[in-house]
Amino acid sequence: MGTGARIAVAGASGYAGGEILRLLLGHPGVEIGALTGASNAGTALGELQPHLVPLADRVLEPTTAQVLAGHDVVFLALPHGQSGAVAAELGDDVVVIDCGADFRLRDAGEWAHYYGGEHAGTWPYGLPELPGQREQLVGARRIAVPGCYPTVSTLALAPAVAAGLVTPDVVVVAASGTSGAGKAAKPHLLGSEVMGNLSAYGVTTHRHTPEIAQNLGLLTDADISVSFTPVLAPTPRGILATASAPLARDLTTEEAHAVYAAAYADEPFVHMLPAGLWPQTQSVIGSNAVQIQVAVDTRARRLIAVGVVDNLAKGTAGGAIQCMNLALGLPETTGLSSVGLAP
Amino acid sequence: MGTGARIAVAGASGYAGGEILRLLLGHPGVEIGALTGASNAGTALGELQPHLVPLADRVLEPTTAQVLAGHDVVFLALPHGQSGAVAAELGDDVVVIDCGADFRLRDAGEWAHYYGGEHAGTWPYGLPELPGQREQLVGARRIAVPGCYPTVSTLALAPAVAAGLVTPDVVVVAASGTSGAGKAAKPHLLGSEVMGNLSAYGVTTHRHTPEIAQNLGLLTDADISVSFTPVLAPTPRGILATASAPLARDLTTEEAHAVYAAAYADEPFVHMLPAGLWPQTQSVIGSNAVQIQVAVDTRARRLIAVGVVDNLAKGTAGGAIQCMNLALGLPETTGLSSVGLAP
Amino acid sequence: MGTGARIAVAGASGYAGGEILRLLLGHPGVEIGALTGASNAGTALGELQPHLVPLADRVLEPTTAQVLAGHDVVFLALPHGQSGAVAAELGDDVVVIDCGADFRLRDAGEWAHYYGGEHAGTWPYGLPELPGQREQLVGARRIAVPGCYPTVSTLALAPAVAAGLVTPDVVVVAASGTSGAGKAAKPHLLGSEVMGNLSAYGVTTHRHTPEIAQNLGLLTDADISVSFTPVLAPTPRGILATASAPLARDLTTEEAHAVYAAAYADEPFVHMLPAGLWPQTQSVIGSNAVQIQVAVDTRARRLIAVGVVDNLAKGTAGGAIQCMNLALGLPETTGLSSVGLAP
Amino acid sequence: MGTGARIAVAGASGYAGGEILRLLLGHPGVEIGALTGASNAGTALGELQPHLVPLADRVLEPTTAQVLAGHDVVFLALPHGQSGAVAAELGDDVVVIDCGADFRLRDAGEWAHYYGGEHAGTWPYGLPELPGQREQLVGARRIAVPGCYPTVSTLALAPAVAAGLVTPDVVVVAASGTSGAGKAAKPHLLGSEVMGNLSAYGVTTHRHTPEIAQNLGLLTDADISVSFTPVLAPTPRGILATASAPLARDLTTEEAHAVYAAAYADEPFVHMLPAGLWPQTQSVIGSNAVQIQVAVDTRARRLIAVGVVDNLAKGTAGGAIQCMNLALGLPETTGLSSVGLAP
Repeated sequence: MGTGARIAVAGASGYAGGEILRLLLGHPGVEIGALTGASNAGTALGELQPHLVPLADRVLEPTTAQVLAGHDVVFLALPHGQSGAVAAELGDDVVVIDCGADFRLRDAGEWAHYYGGEHAGTWPYGLPELPGQREQLVGARRIAVPGCYPTVSTLALAPAVAAGLVTPDVVVVAASGTSGAGKAAKPHLLGSEVMGNLSAYGVTTHRHTPEIAQNLGLLTDADISVSFTPVLAPTPRGILATASAPLARDLTTEEAHAVYAAAYADEPFVHMLPAGLWPQTQSVIGSNAVQIQVAVDTRARRLIAVGVVDNLAKGTAGGAIQCMNLALGLPETTGLSSVGLAP
Repeated sequence: MGTGARIAVAGASGYAGGEILRLLLGHPGVEIGALTGASNAGTALGELQPHLVPLADRVLEPTTAQVLAGHDVVFLALPHGQSGAVAAELGDDVVVIDCGADFRLRDAGEWAHYYGGEHAGTWPYGLPELPGQREQLVGARRIAVPGCYPTVSTLALAPAVAAGLVTPDVVVVAASGTSGAGKAAKPHLLGSEVMGNLSAYGVTTHRHTPEIAQNLGLLTDADISVSFTPVLAPTPRGILATASAPLARDLTTEEAHAVYAAAYADEPFVHMLPAGLWPQTQSVIGSNAVQIQVAVDTRARRLIAVGVVDNLAKGTAGGAIQCMNLALGLPETTGLSSVGLAP
Repeated sequence: MGTGARIAVAGASGYAGGEILRLLLGHPGVEIGALTGASNAGTALGELQPHLVPLADRVLEPTTAQVLAGHDVVFLALPHGQSGAVAAELGDDVVVIDCGADFRLRDAGEWAHYYGGEHAGTWPYGLPELPGQREQLVGARRIAVPGCYPTVSTLALAPAVAAGLVTPDVVVVAASGTSGAGKAAKPHLLGSEVMGNLSAYGVTTHRHTPEIAQNLGLLTDADISVSFTPVLAPTPRGILATASAPLARDLTTEEAHAVYAAAYADEPFVHMLPAGLWPQTQSVIGSNAVQIQVAVDTRARRLIAVGVVDNLAKGTAGGAIQCMNLALGLPETTGLSSVGLAP
Repeated sequence: MGTGARIAVAGASGYAGGEILRLLLGHPGVEIGALTGASNAGTALGELQPHLVPLADRVLEPTTAQVLAGHDVVFLALPHGQSGAVAAELGDDVVVIDCGADFRLRDAGEWAHYYGGEHAGTWPYGLPELPGQREQLVGARRIAVPGCYPTVSTLALAPAVAAGLVTPDVVVVAASGTSGAGKAAKPHLLGSEVMGNLSAYGVTTHRHTPEIAQNLGLLTDADISVSFTPVLAPTPRGILATASAPLARDLTTEEAHAVYAAAYADEPFVHMLPAGLWPQTQSVIGSNAVQIQVAVDTRARRLIAVGVVDNLAKGTAGGAIQCMNLALGLPETTGLSSVGLAP
């Protein structure tokens, strides 16, 4: 396989679907096939995603197994809970990449606690930078793309947890742009409401909490505790996660930085900033890059790591395409970039 | 004394000075006297602060003791380190209200560690809502207005610390609008840089850290530890602080809320939101209000409090005028409002 | 009459209704009575308008004549087309102030062309700064509040048209914040869509076009032509209107400025900026002020006037309260301010 | 020539220089050579442009002929007035592409009127979509990249002027993001000043006015008049230009649209939107696309065209690379995209 893979995107009218298409239009090894929508079936993509000029005349089809059949790769960018039924009708040889939450968690109890309803199952988890995960994605035919917050929160903490620098009793506060909340019209997401505004939401209850804990739990035998608070910020894209945990031993900022730099030395998309520079989301917008900095607070005896990601790109669609590359045996970075759009 | 107090504002061309004037224009008991600037002396205020229409023709004078003399109240909105010299030349009967940091800290060692240089001294701390502080402000002639981050961070944590609900090993992550950084032109504060961007700064080193610790230390005998991380957010005004600490005992969200509600029951400007509603900065912009919500994370065994404030209003200029009211024996809420500008 | 007027607000959950209440909370001569909503009836205002702290516990009632009866003033902040039926059930002695479009136009044909359906009628037009209008508002019992775009567009052009400086063949391009589009959740108004975005809409068809023409037509016998293009800008509040027209005679910028300055010399809320300063919306946010500048382009032989207004304040709610003051015989500026919230 | 052209960028620390580099990093036929700066010489690019990850370790050199020598292409992204001296020292065989204004105007009198000082000369004008221009750019060794406003304003009006649909007495009001003002720190460009704000500037005096007139003058024998008003909008990138002119004859929107569609049928980067859709800047951010819509206002007897462009991309750096492709004999679209970054 390889070049010329034929791709379908289910949910092409939403933000994740649109971003998958934006990236696929710059990917040299694919052909864009069926595009589907729910209420938007029958509408030209040009009316829904006017930035996708080369696909303006494509008309959305309904999201059915029949429409999605006959492709090498199917991206599912559907509301949570809908992926399982669609995937079940697609052949085992098709690469199905789910941008929803349905197959991310391993523990059915955690699923029930945070999402409710029946647990659909667990697919290989699409975060290649997490130790042990890349191998599971090469040639995989079902992949669960991580949540946007877990992507950046996990990568900001993983080296410290894996190296035992901290007690894994972590506190994450992450400010996110609004596109993570999707394109469904809700009053609190109106521009008039979010511009000039900062708001907390999902405090103590956000569904990405168990996913962060699950990821960190792969790196240590110690008990994991995750306090996660998301904040809605007035920008369409980008997450800045501030993550901290108590030091497990005496540590300097230089030592911490060296541990992180070593952990990510071979990663094409995770970049430790040089000493003194702290991440900003603008640097990664539109790209697949994650930028990270770390410091030790000797007074508070905590390690503080800050990471940034574009929630729609590396945090969703870019991560999904990175997984597709691995699944198809393509170079992992094909069609992806570390260069953000700034200013 | 009372109505008709004659007011001078040193630093009238900056954001804090402008906000003091905006609020004084709606205050029934004052007369606006001298307005001073540094490099802007000689310029009409209308060119510098075109929103202050009634003062458009006022020309800034230089910031000298001679200009500031003869007023009942002098607000100092000067760069850090300049207030002491000016205040020393003003009579003991003049109410001097300093919006800078010079006189906030009690510990000269902390001052040296975070600010460097010589410690100017300590004035009564202008946060009336902190137990024991209001009494010190009634009739005071020197007042140090709190920093914007400490105002909201302290109020978000004070009831929990005072009641022993938590171990005072606190983590605060606070997203702030850009006006807190002032009006001096710096490249990283350009609109092109901050719009659509979230960035961390001052990690482990921010000067407001010891001020938060000092405030919480007044409420408990336990050792205080403060991990504070500020985040620059794309909005001119507003701070949303997410503060958390380990539970000291089993606790429910309802109990925590009740403790907070009782603590702030008589405060005119601190409002606990009803259960289920979380603060947003938009609700307090332009006002002197602080809105707070609290929850217990039983899994992570932490108490999470979120507070919002307008950094320029209650966080600086509004807090300063609240202090002036106390100093002059006026009703504390005179000329101030709990009603924010939304959307 | 005067102090103590009892006020009802129909449509208290929307942006116009919320802004009326924000301003009434600072108005010394009123008592806030019934607040009504449609789908939000039964909900506490604190959940819908959390910035209106003093009214947080008020519960919305349904919008019926029974609920609105017994008040001295009723503000209607309802969707277009609903005001007539409600007003018909209120007594002739009640001051009814309609923030909708229903009663603004005089020409039934224009109504039919731009709005469709039956013309409800014409009420006194609530723009006191338009020559001849203030007199009609003193003691009025029915008032049609102008549209936000017509308010600023008319005031930017009126002196030039009235003095015959220009041929009234005007071109207006006005950029507006999103709150003018209301609080109903529509996909194209989502924060993710409007932040970082500029879009044109309603080109050649916007309903405010005939209202601008009607206003200018009161000032000249010449034929009026209005080309109006609105632009949606990424900010919650504020309109900046750029209006131009061909010169009718040789003219200098100084002469034009003098004509404008004379026209608005006695107006409390319309402010000509000094030479060299151009308006910005930030200067008028939250206020009832209109700021205007004018220049002559001698090469293009056009007069260019730029005006700014807060679409929700002077452009809707503030204008409505100014009208209420006139209707009740109160000083016209009661409870209103010329001081904007900046930055 | 062709693949492997060696490129230098003078002014790599600014917005235009950064955008040239962002695009070159995705261009298959180039090798990035010297990067220069003025006060930033000696600094690593990673500190100045942290989004350009692959170039993070490059150190800026001073902008001298010696440093710039030995490249096939030199991009000049310098302050106005500095390009001439640098270009004079570069060989005639080097492709020099100037993003400044120095060589755009043909008329020395216009240069003197709008810029002052001596006219440096005139280079081939880098707007291939303007009739007759593309031919001048193929193989050119000196190219003047158009201004951002003239790019979009010209393309929005050219078909109507060329076809005689309108009298070329045009009115352009264009709202722009802040990056067009550059990265030099000025108080009025601070984030606190521009967020939530709309402001007019350069009214009747903007330097892009004669450039628009020059372009339109190539398309008609009629006298050209241009009234141009720029508006600063709260977004980093994007220009939305609203351009109108009196109809020269009876015309329908459908006819106008057909004229435009025919004019741009073969242009790879200029896209007429289908009827009913109006341009938004979000659709073109980061891309080389221009999106345009047109309508006829039969009442006002004007043609209205609205165009959008990313001021830094097609409006500066993308346009420059399009010119480079033509100069080098590469396919014109190499390394450029019509797909914007939305949301």
